[in-house]
Amino acid sequence: MMAVLFQKVAILGIGHIGSSLARVIRQRGLAAQLVTYDVSAVHRLKAMELSIVDAAFDSLAEAVKEADLVILATPVGSYADLTAAMAPDLMAGAIVTDVGSVKLAVVRDVGPVLPEGVHFVPGHPIAGTEFSGPESGFAELFQGRWCILTPPSGTDEAALAKLVALWEAAGSMVEIMEAGHHDRVLAITSHLPHLIAYTIVGTATDLETSLQQEVVKFSASGFRDFTRIAASDPVMWRDIFLNNREAVLDVLQRFHEDLTALQRAIRWGEGDKLQDLFTRTRAIRRSIIDARQA
Amino acid sequence: MMAVLFQKVAILGIGHIGSSLARVIRQRGLAAQLVTYDVSAVHRLKAMELSIVDAAFDSLAEAVKEADLVILATPVGSYADLTAAMAPDLMAGAIVTDVGSVKLAVVRDVGPVLPEGVHFVPGHPIAGTEFSGPESGFAELFQGRWCILTPPSGTDEAALAKLVALWEAAGSMVEIMEAGHHDRVLAITSHLPHLIAYTIVGTATDLETSLQQEVVKFSASGFRDFTRIAASDPVMWRDIFLNNREAVLDVLQRFHEDLTALQRAIRWGEGDKLQDLFTRTRAIRRSIIDARQA
Repeated sequence: MMAVLFQKVAILGIGHIGSSLARVIRQRGLAAQLVTYDVSAVHRLKAMELSIVDAAFDSLAEAVKEADLVILATPVGSYADLTAAMAPDLMAGAIVTDVGSVKLAVVRDVGPVLPEGVHFVPGHPIAGTEFSGPESGFAELFQGRWCILTPPSGTDEAALAKLVALWEAAGSMVEIMEAGHHDRVLAITSHLPHLIAYTIVGTATDLETSLQQEVVKFSASGFRDFTRIAASDPVMWRDIFLNNREAVLDVLQRFHEDLTALQRAIRWGEGDKLQDLFTRTRAIRRSIIDARQA
Repeated sequence: MMAVLFQKVAILGIGHIGSSLARVIRQRGLAAQLVTYDVSAVHRLKAMELSIVDAAFDSLAEAVKEADLVILATPVGSYADLTAAMAPDLMAGAIVTDVGSVKLAVVRDVGPVLPEGVHFVPGHPIAGTEFSGPESGFAELFQGRWCILTPPSGTDEAALAKLVALWEAAGSMVEIMEAGHHDRVLAITSHLPHLIAYTIVGTATDLETSLQQEVVKFSASGFRDFTRIAASDPVMWRDIFLNNREAVLDVLQRFHEDLTALQRAIRWGEGDKLQDLFTRTRAIRRSIIDARQA
């Protein structure tokens, strides 16, 4: 048990990340009261069955009332409406944060809608699996992982410090970053890989049935690793791509150029070029293992 | 211990697959004598230290002499020269097989060079990790995985049956397939995924140093899964792409089209199209889990 950091925490959306965070907050005793708001009755019931929250509301007002920490943990496309709806009920001095995978759009959609005196500290834990829903969460999800916070200039220092304390209590290392920079880095490390995985799995689903069955059968040869990524939540990922358009299109252009160069090397039998690239890419794997992020 | 299947097995190339197969053959007592040929003195020494073979030769003639089973387990680009060099020393009635990831080129390069009376049964175990070298192998590698055999028409039935017995003893399920079909299926399940992974990791290695460090740091968000695949053996993969050119370029073209359509959907904010695809791709993951290949 750690010192109580918050009197009442409201988690909006009790899915994979929301429920993992609920488990952390509960296990470590970080909040005197912990509630959730979720539009899904199934999710609310499950959250209560799992005993990971004190109450699960279908009323947003009820959930955020008197909360000193409100965590947006729904797909980012829903933030603008949610924020507008809860704004009148937010307590003065409350902190609003989020766990979304894009940050510029969140700063744009959430910040201006919040009432005066409410502190906004956008966040993004670099953690997750391909599973969804309250039952898929676990308290250890954030351990040893990074959490990026992108406080706009002029953010209240005390509010920022409390968010840092929350994520450190979850076992994460915290990095402070400018929102636009976050979106460019994540476009490379996360959004492009997911887009590519969705594409390649999509290409396979368009094959004739007999060939598709063979693809499943022999998927251990590489394909299955992409299917894991391409099993991530569809609405969440739709919103990510729609809300980080410029950075994703930019890195996708680079990828297109590099793939075309490789395609040309294969067509013309340029073995040296292939081997050179394949040797260079090994080094980055080594760096990731050394950084303990493998 | 099973019944001895072969009097003398010669594994040419004691790397990841070769050494895994050596461990299986030894553990299950499938051969009276088990030797290897490898151009690398380090590999030969390591194979002897690990006690996974009875002898490790730098002489190809010595290795294949009197062997009733010869297994090509070097990069496929080396098969033609190796086969020409060993042909005079092969025993009449010997079986030659391989573990290469392409099959049409192997049938083209190996078959015609073998002497009359030597049986050729091309094979491809759908198994492996991103690690290389004799110390990276393990006997359980093939358990529960498929092994594809692509015997040319007229292949000796007894030779084929012995190969099937070998792979079943290794714990694999055996599938018989036409070589060209194998190459088309594997282009989708294995060669395209590897090409894409090499490309995306290559795109990242071309970034400026500071950004590259952040990519490593935050790689848990998707990128790291690609680096594992892109850490596979460079020479082996160079040879695969050079030897399955048509099928790889064909599937790459489909992928290009699909990626361009997705790019366009992102640019024009077509959320429905994105969500539709991301929902369809989830189903294939389910099939792979059901097929116990996850």
